[in-house]
Amino acid sequence: MKRSLESLAREVGGKVIGDGSVVISGLAGIEGAQKGDITFASNERFFALLKETTASAAIVPQEIANLSLPLLIVKNPLLAAAKILALFTLRPYVAGGVSEMAWVSPSAKVSTDATIHPFASIGDEAEIGPRAIIHPFVSIGPQALIGEDCVIHPHVAIYRGCVLGKRVIVHAGTIIGADGFGFVKEGEANVKIPQVGIVEIEDDVEIGANCCIDRATFGKTLIKKGVKFDNLVQIGHNVQIGEHSIIVSQVGISGSTKLGRNVILAGQVGVVDHVEIGDNVMVGAQSGIHTDVPPHQVVVGSPALPHRQFLRVAAVWTKLPEMKRGLDRVRKRLEALEKKVGKEKGEA
Amino acid sequence: MKRSLESLAREVGGKVIGDGSVVISGLAGIEGAQKGDITFASNERFFALLKETTASAAIVPQEIANLSLPLLIVKNPLLAAAKILALFTLRPYVAGGVSEMAWVSPSAKVSTDATIHPFASIGDEAEIGPRAIIHPFVSIGPQALIGEDCVIHPHVAIYRGCVLGKRVIVHAGTIIGADGFGFVKEGEANVKIPQVGIVEIEDDVEIGANCCIDRATFGKTLIKKGVKFDNLVQIGHNVQIGEHSIIVSQVGISGSTKLGRNVILAGQVGVVDHVEIGDNVMVGAQSGIHTDVPPHQVVVGSPALPHRQFLRVAAVWTKLPEMKRGLDRVRKRLEALEKKVGKEKGEA
Amino acid sequence: MKRSLESLAREVGGKVIGDGSVVISGLAGIEGAQKGDITFASNERFFALLKETTASAAIVPQEIANLSLPLLIVKNPLLAAAKILALFTLRPYVAGGVSEMAWVSPSAKVSTDATIHPFASIGDEAEIGPRAIIHPFVSIGPQALIGEDCVIHPHVAIYRGCVLGKRVIVHAGTIIGADGFGFVKEGEANVKIPQVGIVEIEDDVEIGANCCIDRATFGKTLIKKGVKFDNLVQIGHNVQIGEHSIIVSQVGISGSTKLGRNVILAGQVGVVDHVEIGDNVMVGAQSGIHTDVPPHQVVVGSPALPHRQFLRVAAVWTKLPEMKRGLDRVRKRLEALEKKVGKEKGEA
Repeated sequence: MKRSLESLAREVGGKVIGDGSVVISGLAGIEGAQKGDITFASNERFFALLKETTASAAIVPQEIANLSLPLLIVKNPLLAAAKILALFTLRPYVAGGVSEMAWVSPSAKVSTDATIHPFASIGDEAEIGPRAIIHPFVSIGPQALIGEDCVIHPHVAIYRGCVLGKRVIVHAGTIIGADGFGFVKEGEANVKIPQVGIVEIEDDVEIGANCCIDRATFGKTLIKKGVKFDNLVQIGHNVQIGEHSIIVSQVGISGSTKLGRNVILAGQVGVVDHVEIGDNVMVGAQSGIHTDVPPHQVVVGSPALPHRQFLRVAAVWTKLPEMKRGLDRVRKRLEALEKKVGKEKGEA
Repeated sequence: MKRSLESLAREVGGKVIGDGSVVISGLAGIEGAQKGDITFASNERFFALLKETTASAAIVPQEIANLSLPLLIVKNPLLAAAKILALFTLRPYVAGGVSEMAWVSPSAKVSTDATIHPFASIGDEAEIGPRAIIHPFVSIGPQALIGEDCVIHPHVAIYRGCVLGKRVIVHAGTIIGADGFGFVKEGEANVKIPQVGIVEIEDDVEIGANCCIDRATFGKTLIKKGVKFDNLVQIGHNVQIGEHSIIVSQVGISGSTKLGRNVILAGQVGVVDHVEIGDNVMVGAQSGIHTDVPPHQVVVGSPALPHRQFLRVAAVWTKLPEMKRGLDRVRKRLEALEKKVGKEKGEA
Repeated sequence: MKRSLESLAREVGGKVIGDGSVVISGLAGIEGAQKGDITFASNERFFALLKETTASAAIVPQEIANLSLPLLIVKNPLLAAAKILALFTLRPYVAGGVSEMAWVSPSAKVSTDATIHPFASIGDEAEIGPRAIIHPFVSIGPQALIGEDCVIHPHVAIYRGCVLGKRVIVHAGTIIGADGFGFVKEGEANVKIPQVGIVEIEDDVEIGANCCIDRATFGKTLIKKGVKFDNLVQIGHNVQIGEHSIIVSQVGISGSTKLGRNVILAGQVGVVDHVEIGDNVMVGAQSGIHTDVPPHQVVVGSPALPHRQFLRVAAVWTKLPEMKRGLDRVRKRLEALEKKVGKEKGEA
């Protein structure tokens, strides 16, 4: 596909400086860009590199002096780049039908417009929506519902009765709806609490590879609209995650915890069960959350502290040995002084 | 299925207060319960909610004043609820036979009473016990043994020669018997130490989704009776885990470490190799265990400390900045005093 | 297979003390060894155990007094043991051809010498090299290249266009080439940045079970020669890992970070995006790396400190409560002294 710079500008709502008729056939980073590519730069550090790029145009947030390259000016170059890259790389959907090497239960309902690859397994009474792509080795359990335009990558397992909305992307190896971790002690033995709820995933969610989202004990584990998961994330039973939240790799969220909307949990964060994290909270990498977190906070550490407090505490952390020595010295000087003052008073 | 409250009481060994003939058709949490459901409440906080429930009966640990609801009195309401929920939800096993779309080695021995789903793969000389359920996309390696009544969910891989006891449940995506992580340096290169042992899993173990339990270098990695794993757990080669222990999500246990019986490791705990954790030890979330832990201890932190000590240390942790300022102020006051005392003596 | 001790010595470049004609048929640890086995011991602690072993010979780094056992003297007993164990246990490759129960795209190129198991899926224009073994439920995406002598265990997914060199081993459940985690905010919504790069894995890499190695946004995520991964490791988009590095279980490395050669990251380490870790760096378990680390450093902690500094700081850590009490006492004594000195001067 080829597009003029002018037409790309119309697509993303930007302004062209320079030759708008230049033909663009792809998008690439500044260093990898070749003739015909458009590239992008968000700040001063990268503007400098534009002088040597071989790209045919650049997406930038402002005019840049001494640059012969045609420019596409937008507010958010990365956002415009994402959209233009999608234009050049996303292939239009072509319905592939149901492979003869797939297994589809006679009671399943598969849209005539869906694509079921070889070695997919569609359980009893499951439903697959229009234009959904079910890759090889995907197991769709009985009564599971997969909405329109979903892409389910290889080795995903969706257990009985779980529900996916529209345009949900699930990367390979992710398990949706395995039993929540519920046991009760009877003497030493651990008696299983049957997990009879489901997982519901709303529209436009994307889930990384090898994640686990457990089914609810009762009711549902709920991942709301637009949430994005990185890889190897663990979501316990009955968790709720609010709209557009971002859960980075290797995060673990324990049972019944609720996240507000637009929350960001950085890599390897752990959250205990039954707490609430408010809207727009950001949690730093490797933090441990043991209590509720009010909205709009930035917290870090294990146990987590407000970010500024954490920085102040962490600054002292590395000075502990010299603090200890300092305290010992103070104690000695104090003793010496006490002796001296005492002596003067005839108390020693 | 429907049961009288009276008959449920007999099943779990409880006492009925009120109308024992009320008909119960399911179990649910207090908020989700509907007419015909029995619900449960373990403490005061939930007793209050019982006044407004629409459930037809409640499992409680004691009589509760001013409640018209028929009650089932038991010592441990959650335990009774788990057993009653199982009564209502567990379906009796129906042998499904071997799917024509499965691959079963001619030298494998599959019980006539087992269920092998489409796209399961049973290797040479493997054995599948009575009433075992092998879901789609399960790979049973050569010479692996799967005991009676096991449930192996989709995408589980059990490598060559590994052994599962009776009633073992393995959730989707879990890998049992991949090579232990054993390499030895030859110059810069890492030379592989062949991993010729196996994994053995005893009766009544349940393993979550996307876990990894590595085979032993020699001998076996051993998961004893009744152990329960959450998701994404990593078990190194030659690890031993004692009876009824609980391993929460994202825990990692390094090679040759031994856990006693009834140990609990909370989420994201890491344990180094070659240490021993005694019976009944509890380890708090995100802790790091670097040395042996004696039986019956509760430890927290990284590196882990006894729980009470950890709390005392952590309480000071957030006060570090003011401690540092306090020390600085003390030092200044001390200097002033030293000067004063010195001056008085004509030393300044 | 049986070998004389003498011939094993020639194989690994060692010297025999005692009867070199003794026949060896296997290798085992000191405790599990039986007649016919050779065992090994690297240091004093294990030399003692040799006196009671039933093994027929032992690999050791030096002569040992009062031992009747024939000895094989080498510089590095563990290395020699690894090589001898491989001799006894590795089976020669036998080409298995393409199973009729596999799915191979008509446009894929599969070496006549490769082994494709039942229920493997080989995508359009993918290439499988000589002697490569593709296990059941492996998904090789379109245009992916698998080099000679690779072993791809069950449930591995290799996405479109990814490239594996020679002798790469990938354990079960690992996902190579899922989309990198790239989103850009448009209001609250997270707009996906298409991930159009690939993953390239060089020769002699081994990857554990249930790992995730994300494809690059542009260009490639690169795992260089001889790198070894444990299980459940997360590698972000555009990461580079240098030759022979060792990445232990549950490590997470964020996007665009570069590791030098011969780096060791211990279990559960997290590394932020866009940093560089120099050659031969070692990072302790559960550490968090937030900045560049120069070559040859050993660092520990979160945030990570040089190892010695960490030990000094950690030693004070457990003494915080007594430091705080110490400071309080000092303050009181100081106050008392100030009063006294003041009084003497009539200032109180």
